[in-house]
Formats: sequence, structure tokens, C-alpha cells
Amino acid sequence: MHAPETEDVQDLGQAAGDLLARVRERRPRVHCITNTVAQAFTANMLLALGAVPSMTIAPEEIADFVSRADALLVNLGTLDAERRTACDIAVAKADAVGVPFVLDPVFVDRSESRAAYAKALMQCHPRAIRLNAAEFVTLAGADDEDKEALMHFARQYTTTIGLTGSTDRVADGTRCAEFRNGHPLMAKVTAMGCAASALVAAATAVERDTFRAAAGGLTILGVAGEIAGERARGPGSFAVEIIDAVHQLDRRTLAERARGTP
Amino acid sequence: MHAPETEDVQDLGQAAGDLLARVRERRPRVHCITNTVAQAFTANMLLALGAVPSMTIAPEEIADFVSRADALLVNLGTLDAERRTACDIAVAKADAVGVPFVLDPVFVDRSESRAAYAKALMQCHPRAIRLNAAEFVTLAGADDEDKEALMHFARQYTTTIGLTGSTDRVADGTRCAEFRNGHPLMAKVTAMGCAASALVAAATAVERDTFRAAAGGLTILGVAGEIAGERARGPGSFAVEIIDAVHQLDRRTLAERARGTP
Amino acid sequence: MHAPETEDVQDLGQAAGDLLARVRERRPRVHCITNTVAQAFTANMLLALGAVPSMTIAPEEIADFVSRADALLVNLGTLDAERRTACDIAVAKADAVGVPFVLDPVFVDRSESRAAYAKALMQCHPRAIRLNAAEFVTLAGADDEDKEALMHFARQYTTTIGLTGSTDRVADGTRCAEFRNGHPLMAKVTAMGCAASALVAAATAVERDTFRAAAGGLTILGVAGEIAGERARGPGSFAVEIIDAVHQLDRRTLAERARGTP
Repeated sequence: MHAPETEDVQDLGQAAGDLLARVRERRPRVHCITNTVAQAFTANMLLALGAVPSMTIAPEEIADFVSRADALLVNLGTLDAERRTACDIAVAKADAVGVPFVLDPVFVDRSESRAAYAKALMQCHPRAIRLNAAEFVTLAGADDEDKEALMHFARQYTTTIGLTGSTDRVADGTRCAEFRNGHPLMAKVTAMGCAASALVAAATAVERDTFRAAAGGLTILGVAGEIAGERARGPGSFAVEIIDAVHQLDRRTLAERARGTP
Repeated sequence: MHAPETEDVQDLGQAAGDLLARVRERRPRVHCITNTVAQAFTANMLLALGAVPSMTIAPEEIADFVSRADALLVNLGTLDAERRTACDIAVAKADAVGVPFVLDPVFVDRSESRAAYAKALMQCHPRAIRLNAAEFVTLAGADDEDKEALMHFARQYTTTIGLTGSTDRVADGTRCAEFRNGHPLMAKVTAMGCAASALVAAATAVERDTFRAAAGGLTILGVAGEIAGERARGPGSFAVEIIDAVHQLDRRTLAERARGTP
Repeated sequence: MHAPETEDVQDLGQAAGDLLARVRERRPRVHCITNTVAQAFTANMLLALGAVPSMTIAPEEIADFVSRADALLVNLGTLDAERRTACDIAVAKADAVGVPFVLDPVFVDRSESRAAYAKALMQCHPRAIRLNAAEFVTLAGADDEDKEALMHFARQYTTTIGLTGSTDRVADGTRCAEFRNGHPLMAKVTAMGCAASALVAAATAVERDTFRAAAGGLTILGVAGEIAGERARGPGSFAVEIIDAVHQLDRRTLAERARGTP
């Protein structure tokens, strides 16, 4: 537990607390096109936060769901043909009706066809992209994931990047900050990154400044992860505890524990 | 813990205990066409009850699975084209071989095409329909979900309605009762309603009076939810505890805790 | 806790400990085509072991994923058309690039079309087949699952059989042994058999002797199941505890608890 070091992230804990309060009050609907591995954990994480998830991918229904939603998550895991059709319809509808759209380009480093599809979706104005280092390097064609590369990429696509790993970073065209909450067991639970993206999507539903939305969403998950790590004895109990911790989070805990550096 | 107030539900706890004993003895096979978010939780809930779940949706296999099953659940979540084809085949087979069929019209209030499909399935003689208030209002074209509306709807489709929420209600053409077990955290775990429908389906496999089957299934889940609520500190641990609680339930606990009013 | 009785399995605990150490060191990538019910539990089990799961089934991506993997699991649950296409591509790619392939013919006793498909896949050189007694009897056309039937089947298909149940057995053309770890609650958690197959697949990535790989994988899960059974009060907490137990397993525990008989 450290106080945040500089002005940009000085109010990180307070901003995350504000964000959480707004989600709990407004109960945003988050439509998630996400992989079948991640669906249940993601839905439970959104419910624990105070949001309302839906998950259909049927092409004939997806526009109805998106137009009634407050945010859209498009996660490319277990990407099959019907899911891809659903993504195209969903992203177009979100753009048409002004629903913010967050992209999670899962495993683009493992599949060339998926990387190409992710690049096409990046042209469709995702409000934020949440990914890991291997995925970033693949999509950006960059040698590494340093601050300059992140900011360049964010400017190029007029988006906000949330790069998660042992340290999380958020960058838009003008700002870049590091976030230091979290726990090593987060890497041992499937769909933790997917859930992070879902929390960022929920945050964009209640916060127009996407940099603050991404910072807040990742901080909420990171602080919950620290609390879960104190209670768990392995990844099985950690997955349970982190959902309880998100549900129990309050302003004071966020203010005390949130850590970031610009 | 109250004793049930009147004759119709006086034996509610005892009836639920009988039902549970029959499920554990006969181990009914429940084939579930259910959404990908709910599958694992539903399967674990059925196993905890003592039933045997199967979950395939492949059109070329579904008739084989249904004809070897003791009950069929059709849940319309994450309804894609193949799943819809599977539903049609499964419902026709169930009708042909006399396997009771329970319908869960998830989120019909969010999608017009899904509502239309649910209405078509309602013509195929579901033994019971389990839904929430928003789904009921959409399907019934009713203004609210009061007792008269429920009984009218049940008569219209010659079915039993299980409407779940902060209070659960079961209605067929002649009877209507309220059930007061349960816990607020049930609304914070994804697929809890889907699991309720699965327990009702399992109950119809061992109880020909569908009103009693639905009442018993919802009471078992509600009592388990209360026990889980006493042990959990959030929705993550609640989802674990409710499965343990269903597994541990016995006649005495059901008799002591079951609460209902006609 | 018994010491293993004879030479063939005398070093069972030590062999399982070696296997576990190699998985943790090499972190093999295991690509799983597995049913949607089992995906999250299987992924979490592989992560707890120290392996890296991936789960896509998209036909245009599957060859990329398999060629970057160290083992392939093909599980026939929730087998739909796209999944079947993915299996065909994956198995062919695995054969071409020398990635070991493990088959889990889930519920072939419930569906003739699935049994026929499983038999076709058995011609594609699975390194191991993990199944239960009902599935074995269906596939082998045998009257029971005794030692002779298992060894005959293993010889016929030049594979290793891992048959799980209250006692587990592993057989190849020349060896057959019984493994006696495990806990009754393993049968009350969905996808436990699927997870066993995934652990065997991970084991084949680091151990060329498939008999030892299967014995080690099943022993690891069985010992973890015993530990989980000591801590759990029902199948909900058991599913959490067994993942923690796999994560926490060490050589000494395996050496003390592993039990087998040739």
C-alpha cells in the first residue's frame, strides 16, 4: 500500500471509488461477445461489480441486445464463424447507436486469421483495447510494449490501450500511466484478462473519459485481486475470492490500496 | 423459518423432501439444451441434486440423447442457429416419447425474435415454464404478473408457470402459491434462474403433478440459497455454497425451512 | 495411504512427482477441443498444473493453434458440426507435426453417431484414450472392462487406455495397472473426467512413455481429489479445493499418497 506518486494518478483510488459507485447506482447493461471459456466468470464478475451482463451471439438477436445495452465487449476468444458474424453486426450497431465498444483481441499472437480480424475491428472505433504484451506486439507490429509504443498505437487508432501483466498500463494519445495492484494468481485463473476487459467495458458505460474508465476498471480488479490473494490458498479459491472481493469493495479500500505512477 | 400457513402448501417441506429422495434414488437423466454461460453451473447443480445431466446440442445427436433422458430442459439463452435446430428436434422427440419438457425463455424481453420463438415452443406442450417477471410480461402480453395473469397464462397454454424473483410463484390452471425461501445473492450469480429451471425439469422426471414438481424444485433451491447466504461473504462463495447446500439437504432441513402461502 | 505393491508401480509417486516438475518447468501448451460445459474447469485445471491451455475450435484457426501446441486434447462432448470439422483438421495437423493427441470419447454410449465418429478418430493414432466403463464397453464392443479387454483394445489401436471410475486403470499393449487414489465427490463435479483427460494430454507433452504419462496424470488428479475430499463439504467446494490441491501438490505428497497395483 503506497500513496500514488503524482498528480495524474493521485486521485486514482478516489476515481475508482467514484466509478464503482456509479456502476452500482446505474447498473449498466454490458453485452459481451466473449469466448465460451470466459462467459460464466465474466458474467459473475460483472454482476459482482453491479453491472448486468448479457452474452448472446446469435446474429438475428445481437443488434437487439446491443441497442438495449450501455456498453459492448468484443472478445475474440473461441472465435468461430457465427461469432465473427455477430461481432460485425454488434460493432456496426454499437457505432450507429453510440454504445461504447471495448475490444479484447485474445491470442492474436497464436492465429494469423484472428490477428487480421482484430486489425479490421480496430478500424471500427473501439473506445478501448485491453490486451497482454504478446497480443500488443502482434497487433502493433512493435518490438516491445514500452510507453512510446503504447502511446503511438493509441494515437494511431484514436483509442485507449489497457495493457495488463505483472504491471498494468493504460495509454491514450496524450497520457500513459502504470498501475501496480494485482496478484500473481491472477495469471493462474482462466479468463481473468477477459474479465478485466469486461470491467473496463462496464466502466466506459458510466465514464466518458476512457483513460479514467480503463484506469478505474483495472484498479478495481487489481485491488480485488490483492484482497483475494490474501485469502486464497490456490487458483481455485482465488477465483471465488476475487468475485467476493469485487462485490465487497468500497471507497475506503480503493483509496487505501490503489497504486499507480504516471 | 415459518410453518407454511395453509393446507395447499402445508406439506411443502415434506413434499420437497419426498421429491429430493426420489431424485436421489432414481437419478433421472436430464438433458439440457441450455446456454453456454449456464452449462457448467447447471450441470453441477443437477449432480448435487442427484440427477445426471447431459448437454449436447448437435442436431444429429439430440434425438438420441432426449430419447434416453427422463426430462428435457430447453433454455433459450445464447440462442444460435444450431441450438434452435436442436430445440426443434428435441421438443418433437420429447413429445413423441413422453419425456417431460420444461421451457426457460431467458431474456425474451430483450429480443423480439427470441420472444417469437418462445411463443412457438409454448405450443409444443411444455410441462412447465420457469421465467422472471420481465420475461412473463413479454410472453403473456400482460400488464403485470399478478395471480390472475399467471393462472390465465397457465390455463391458456395448459402448463405450469414458475415465476421467480424476490418471491417465487407457481401457478397452473387451478392452483397458485407463493414461495418465500431464497436469498438476495441468488440474483448476483449468473445462471441461477437457469439452474432453477433445471431443478424443476429434474423434479418433473419423478413427480407427475407438475405444480408439486415446480413447487418442490424451487423450494429446494430456495432453502439451499438461504443456507448458502448464511455461509457466503459474496456472490463468488455463494455460488459454491449453494451447490454444497443442495448436496447436503435433507428432509428435516426442508421441513423446518420451507415457506409458502397459497 | 499404502505403499505401491509391486515393481511396475513402485515408483508411481516418484514418477508422478517427476512428471509434475517437468510440466511446471516446461509449461506445455495444451490445445483443447473440449465441450463448452468443461472448458473453464479444464482450463483452470491445466493452469493449476502449470500448463498453458488454449480452446479455440474455429476451423480457420485450429491448425495454427495445434501447430504451436505441445499436446492436443480432443473431447467429443457437445459435439456440433463446427467442432467436428475442427477435430478433423486438428487431428490431421497433430499427426503431421508430431503433437501427441489424446481422445476423450464422452458419452459415446448415448449417441450412435458420436460412437461412429469416435471410432473414426481412433484410426488417427491417439496417443491415449481416456474414458469411463460405459464408454469403453460401447467403443470396444466388449462385454466388460476387465484387464484382458483393456489390453486387447490398446493393442488393437496401438494406444494407451486410461479407464477412470472408482478405481482407475491404465493399459497399453503390454502393461496394465490399477490406481487407487481419488474421492467419491469426483463423480459429482461436472467435467472431472474431461479434466483428467486434459491432465493426461499435458503429461504426454513431457513424457514419451504414454503409459507413464497416463499413470502420472491420473495419479496427480487422484491425489489432489483425496486432499480436496478432506477439505470440502460438498461438490461445490470440492471443485474449488481440487484446483487448489493440484496447484499445491509437491513431490513429497505424491510420494506419500500415490497408490497403485499392477
